[in-house]
Amino acid sequence: MSAAGGAILERLASRICAFTRHDLTPLSLARARTGITDTIGVTLAGIPEPCAQILLRTPGVATAPGAALVFGTARRTSALDAALVNGTASHALDYDDFSGDLGGHQSVPLVAPLFALAEERGLSGMRLVQAYVVGMETLIRLARAVNFVHYDKGWHPTSTLGVFGAAAASAHMIGLDAPRTAIALSLAASMASGLKANFGTMAKPFHAGHCARNGLLAALMAEQGFVANPGVMEHHQGFLDVFNGPGNHDATRIFEGWGRPWEVEAPGIALKQFPCCGSTHPAIAMMLKLVREEGITAAVVERIEVLPHARRLPHTDNPHPTTPLGAKFSVQYAVVRALLSGTPKLADFEGEAALDPEAQRLLALTTARAHPDMPRDGAAQWGAEVIVTLRDGRRLSRRVNQMVGRGGDNPMSSDELWEKFHDCAERGLARENIAPLFDRLDAIEEVGDMRDLTRLLEYTAPLGGGPRFAEVERQGMPLETGWVP
Amino acid sequence: MSAAGGAILERLASRICAFTRHDLTPLSLARARTGITDTIGVTLAGIPEPCAQILLRTPGVATAPGAALVFGTARRTSALDAALVNGTASHALDYDDFSGDLGGHQSVPLVAPLFALAEERGLSGMRLVQAYVVGMETLIRLARAVNFVHYDKGWHPTSTLGVFGAAAASAHMIGLDAPRTAIALSLAASMASGLKANFGTMAKPFHAGHCARNGLLAALMAEQGFVANPGVMEHHQGFLDVFNGPGNHDATRIFEGWGRPWEVEAPGIALKQFPCCGSTHPAIAMMLKLVREEGITAAVVERIEVLPHARRLPHTDNPHPTTPLGAKFSVQYAVVRALLSGTPKLADFEGEAALDPEAQRLLALTTARAHPDMPRDGAAQWGAEVIVTLRDGRRLSRRVNQMVGRGGDNPMSSDELWEKFHDCAERGLARENIAPLFDRLDAIEEVGDMRDLTRLLEYTAPLGGGPRFAEVERQGMPLETGWVP
Repeated sequence: MSAAGGAILERLASRICAFTRHDLTPLSLARARTGITDTIGVTLAGIPEPCAQILLRTPGVATAPGAALVFGTARRTSALDAALVNGTASHALDYDDFSGDLGGHQSVPLVAPLFALAEERGLSGMRLVQAYVVGMETLIRLARAVNFVHYDKGWHPTSTLGVFGAAAASAHMIGLDAPRTAIALSLAASMASGLKANFGTMAKPFHAGHCARNGLLAALMAEQGFVANPGVMEHHQGFLDVFNGPGNHDATRIFEGWGRPWEVEAPGIALKQFPCCGSTHPAIAMMLKLVREEGITAAVVERIEVLPHARRLPHTDNPHPTTPLGAKFSVQYAVVRALLSGTPKLADFEGEAALDPEAQRLLALTTARAHPDMPRDGAAQWGAEVIVTLRDGRRLSRRVNQMVGRGGDNPMSSDELWEKFHDCAERGLARENIAPLFDRLDAIEEVGDMRDLTRLLEYTAPLGGGPRFAEVERQGMPLETGWVP
Repeated sequence: MSAAGGAILERLASRICAFTRHDLTPLSLARARTGITDTIGVTLAGIPEPCAQILLRTPGVATAPGAALVFGTARRTSALDAALVNGTASHALDYDDFSGDLGGHQSVPLVAPLFALAEERGLSGMRLVQAYVVGMETLIRLARAVNFVHYDKGWHPTSTLGVFGAAAASAHMIGLDAPRTAIALSLAASMASGLKANFGTMAKPFHAGHCARNGLLAALMAEQGFVANPGVMEHHQGFLDVFNGPGNHDATRIFEGWGRPWEVEAPGIALKQFPCCGSTHPAIAMMLKLVREEGITAAVVERIEVLPHARRLPHTDNPHPTTPLGAKFSVQYAVVRALLSGTPKLADFEGEAALDPEAQRLLALTTARAHPDMPRDGAAQWGAEVIVTLRDGRRLSRRVNQMVGRGGDNPMSSDELWEKFHDCAERGLARENIAPLFDRLDAIEEVGDMRDLTRLLEYTAPLGGGPRFAEVERQGMPLETGWVP
């Protein structure tokens, strides 16, 4: 208990419950639409991945009867298990949005349980958007209270903090009162888990699905009258001290400036535009700019110099990638691919795409080195410059000093969002459903019953893999990490 | 990786997989029978409790079709959800066995998933016993590596370490090879959770069910080909450093003396003979001894002095309990009840049992104080003396210097086991099934298909509570804690 009026989770629950549609500003609504749409896209891309497919064949998983769809399939099950599988799929490719303050991915713990709940109870898109905004506020504000000790120590915040976001969003969606919301959050604390030592394996996306399911479970248990300690955060054997260590947290940061603006408004959501390591993105963007503004093509290029910020290079300096994983972590290949094919797509980092002869020819003309003018320990660590020397002797270059994903002042255009969405969604959906789905998501707040929308997420092809799954399984499942700053 | 041959979990997995029925000594078999039987009993007693009943009415919980029984009901579901509900029920009353080395309860993470798996796959009692012994070895040896920093910090070891035991036992039961067993253990690390700040609420038994389900899930996922990092323990952002802090663990203790003897043999299983706070047990035992050996009755008693070890008294010094929770934490009432009714039973700590006029009359003659001759910080902290002054002026006393539950050198007799089992089982079963069930459990290694045994655990009365549930719910669910040393 604190003098300021109750346990931390009681005060947090009051704020969560006080959120109504009148708190939804036009900007937060617009951002929510984007974040939800992008998450649905990457989830559809993730469904064929082994982490999701293996879950689907695990005995007892997603076999409960229910109304909640496993996206990109015809399987319907309990909201709990739909949240588990869709949540895992949404993070399978590490292609989902993220937050620097969280040190993780903020939409994946929220979207899967909210869609599942909406389907199970026939709730509206407007209600879902509200729950999404207040769920994000909860999890990012908790992150402000514990980061970056929390992240640096080895916790996986997408999961250890995401479970609170999932619980808060779910509690709001089903209309729990403040005392039960506090209990849901307390149960979330008891289920918080996830270690960064499992990055680089399927366990990483599983963390996202597991926390999504657990946060939802917490809300459903609280709804039924389960009891837990609302003082679980500040207790000397509670979440703040046990996960972070005494003195390594500041709970006042949960509440200071709550909703002024909403986290979804600022700093907002950083979208990952390209399906490869985030550290390669500024350089890709500069090459795309050269192509667009200077009209250069592969045929006229004599030399490519890539100069990322020093902190972006060590894990992406891979001049001769031969595997999909190598390609995803090669800034040289990413830039070459942008020159060759425009905006990089999922298929550009799969199979033998990196062995394409034209890509190999260009890689031989490409060098990378840390940018000499971008201070290693400066505030901006996400810059890059690309310099292209043409056969006619001209040297052209573009430079960006800071580009952490796309969002805020540098949002993806509607066309760019659609391009990514389509590339993702065709992994999991019949093509004719993709555009109608995108359009409905773009006005999600007008959907009266979310089941009208989620029908478009069904795919009746047989479950269990297909060529993409077989390919990834054959490779031995090296799911990449590397995006989180 | 360590020089000694692979990651910790790889080495652990090799040992788990090497365990065969030839490693099952007569003593370990006998202890396993006792531990399993006692756990089944307390699970049946826990099923009507709110924590289990609320789970059963939570949407999506235990609704998947399957062969695994929710004990004391007619509901069959997936092994995963049976493990969740039965695991929660098994710890609902805090009446299950425990381990001082673990700082928690070692059978509850093991028994529920193993019974569920055995039912789902038609496995034998012999196989279950082996999995139980090797699962217990795994979780207690991990405890030796991390305690008591782990416990003192605020982790709930029943759950944070129990999840490894559940994964190991489940992996052994389904015959995973060593690489997949290591992956199951790694997934367990990623799901390890549970905070002591939630002690004293329903979340505590839920931790047990949650870890039981998660450990089983880890094994089932590994069986299907899921991948995780076997180096997750020793990684600088892995389980040992993140949960305990660098330097606060010693992984060599996992392996030193493995199986020599088995943990189930020594120190073995400490059983809780009475359904009240463990700190009251030595005094109860001394009163029972006085009754048995001196033939005293309530009618001839003029004064009762209770002298527990100083560390046992502060939380049990409750001279006038009026509620069930108060009664469970009153050493005075516990001793009076033993004099009045013999071995204390579940009903002696429920409803208005403590308000019984004869108990009240005796409480007025009873005092408690810390024992003057038992050093507060000595090795033995679980002693007590009871001195009774009779109306004829005689003073009779009995004293025990150390009695941490029942087990090891002070095992419960077969009659005592039966007495407790019957008291527990009649909460969840038809009476005519109780004795046949006890007999089958007492020769569990001879059961060829566990489904022949588990049929006796069915109860076809309507689900959803009954009078016991209604009573506990009305009380506002104060589930007690306080047993763990």
